[in-house]
Amino acid sequence: VRKPNPDLHADRRGQILKAAMAVFARKGLHKATMPDIAAAAGMSAANLYHYVKSKDAILQVMAQEDRRESMQILAALAEADDLVNGLLAIIDEYLPQQDDSEIVVGIEILAEACRNPVMREAFATLDREVRDALAMLIKRAQARGQVDSDLEPHAAAAVILDLGESSLGRRIFDPAYDVAGGLTELKRMLTAYLRPKGGKSGGKRA
Amino acid sequence: VRKPNPDLHADRRGQILKAAMAVFARKGLHKATMPDIAAAAGMSAANLYHYVKSKDAILQVMAQEDRRESMQILAALAEADDLVNGLLAIIDEYLPQQDDSEIVVGIEILAEACRNPVMREAFATLDREVRDALAMLIKRAQARGQVDSDLEPHAAAAVILDLGESSLGRRIFDPAYDVAGGLTELKRMLTAYLRPKGGKSGGKRA
Repeated sequence: VRKPNPDLHADRRGQILKAAMAVFARKGLHKATMPDIAAAAGMSAANLYHYVKSKDAILQVMAQEDRRESMQILAALAEADDLVNGLLAIIDEYLPQQDDSEIVVGIEILAEACRNPVMREAFATLDREVRDALAMLIKRAQARGQVDSDLEPHAAAAVILDLGESSLGRRIFDPAYDVAGGLTELKRMLTAYLRPKGGKSGGKRA
Repeated sequence: VRKPNPDLHADRRGQILKAAMAVFARKGLHKATMPDIAAAAGMSAANLYHYVKSKDAILQVMAQEDRRESMQILAALAEADDLVNGLLAIIDEYLPQQDDSEIVVGIEILAEACRNPVMREAFATLDREVRDALAMLIKRAQARGQVDSDLEPHAAAAVILDLGESSLGRRIFDPAYDVAGGLTELKRMLTAYLRPKGGKSGGKRA
């Protein structure tokens, strides 16, 4: 019996996740089958089942990846001297590089989370965790005078998260959409919303 | 042979659309069947086929309804003396009354539009039409000094449309979400973004 090689195992899992993402995007979550995913990953179905038991297991791994990435972004934001500049940097860095397949699958997972109680719970828990962390950073930035003190931190966190995610769909269904122009306005909107307004207490112009 | 009664026909179609929306939301676009929709509408499958030929035909009627509603909202906005106040009124009036089923189905149709070329084209065409109309209203409001003249009207229209739609998912997957608080921040964000900034030419504080 050969000892499993953990690096090879991790590589294979990465390869499977990438293949599954492409198949989910092309056929939809419901129509995609394990044999489709095996074919896209260039392995036999039997071999695929050696690594993951089901489509649901793949979705769970994807959710964990998503959580890990979100926590990384939040950790980077917590290190930033200025929250607004940190958020603008994230928009520039992360949004343009988002993979089309990931965007489509993300939208479909959201629809599924609205329907399937197990996915809904997992989705809502991660969303709350991210919102709470961002709300804490907003509070800190308000105390530093970097963010308008009128904003309610938790509700503001939700609106900011929505803003980032919502901008992604259009570039897929409309190839003529001016992505760069949209990102410019997105950043302008975020800045106008978050920065202390002139003439208010706590504001830079006060 | 009885003459068809057009009002009764319209009533039946409305009833079918409502039933289809509920079934699509519960089972998903792909798993929903015509017999499911017939059962939800309280009619036989044969009777359902008398009114609509297929799931695709139902989706097309839904898209037409959506288009009609969008055009109504834009017409109301064009009548408003002030675009920003008009948009805030729409947020208060339309977003809270959105039906949960419609929101879920809307998210899934977006995912499908990213995948299916026919739906993509229809979706992108309507989206462009709405964006162009809103961009025209933004230009007019800029000329009136009601909206920040720095904004690029077309890109701004896209960001504003995204903002409105994106806020709807969370209230379904997270029943604990503070919907009213989110709407308050959404309106604050829109106002901060659109209004002329103090100290700029064309701005109210200039």
